Amino acid sequence: MNAFKLDERLRNDTFLIANIGLCQLRLMNDSRWPWLILVPQRADITEMFELAPLDQAMLTFETNLVADALKRSKGAVKINVAAIGNIVRQLHVHIIARYENDANWPGPVWGFGERQPYAEADKSAFAKLILDAI
Amino acid sequence: MNAFKLDERLRNDTFLIANIGLCQLRLMNDSRWPWLILVPQRADITEMFELAPLDQAMLTFETNLVADALKRSKGAVKINVAAIGNIVRQLHVHIIARYENDANWPGPVWGFGERQPYAEADKSAFAKLILDAI
Repeated sequence: MNAFKLDERLRNDTFLIANIGLCQLRLMNDSRWPWLILVPQRADITEMFELAPLDQAMLTFETNLVADALKRSKGAVKINVAAIGNIVRQLHVHIIARYENDANWPGPVWGFGERQPYAEADKSAFAKLILDAI
Repeated sequence: MNAFKLDERLRNDTFLIANIGLCQLRLMNDSRWPWLILVPQRADITEMFELAPLDQAMLTFETNLVADALKRSKGAVKINVAAIGNIVRQLHVHIIARYENDANWPGPVWGFGERQPYAEADKSAFAKLILDAI
């Protein structure tokens, strides 16, 4: 059995906020949307249904915990939750706050335009905000 | 407490395959991708975290059951699972089979190009295939 090792692309595109149990909670380095990523710390998993049943339940719990905290703390109109993985195959769940005036409303965020990386201070402030809300 | 009533747009864009427990399993009327929709039969729910805890667990179970069946029966490279709801606010979960030569790989399916409605016979054949696989 292999040990969990974070995918290189996820490591480069995101920042660790906290380890919340099953998952690493990470911040996508794109300030156009408040955009979090959960990565279950299990090796060799691509699809949610490949997780053990208890891990599936944990992932649901952590996803909904984070989605609720994100919506409350950022005053979003809608939360988008998705496991896509067409490019990065290591299972990861996107949790994104959406607004009616955001960069691609009501279209999807994936593959749209150019990323806008965070300033260091904004990154820390967002991490604190979301941890306080959880 | 209101009774569940299927959103008008979901009714127009999809076909009922079966009621599988918490959710209606529906087929998106777009033959470019094998594309299923789960709609929890609960009134006034927009976000997954608004469901009661037991319903959250049921939705996870039904989502993973259908995703696994879809991947096996359609030989997909990757399954995309998402609750977006920027346009249709009634909670619904997309479960989509993706292939490296599909219409918008590796980009998202939402908001891309024009729908290609099913012929009646193809619709019935897909419904039978997925129910046999579940």
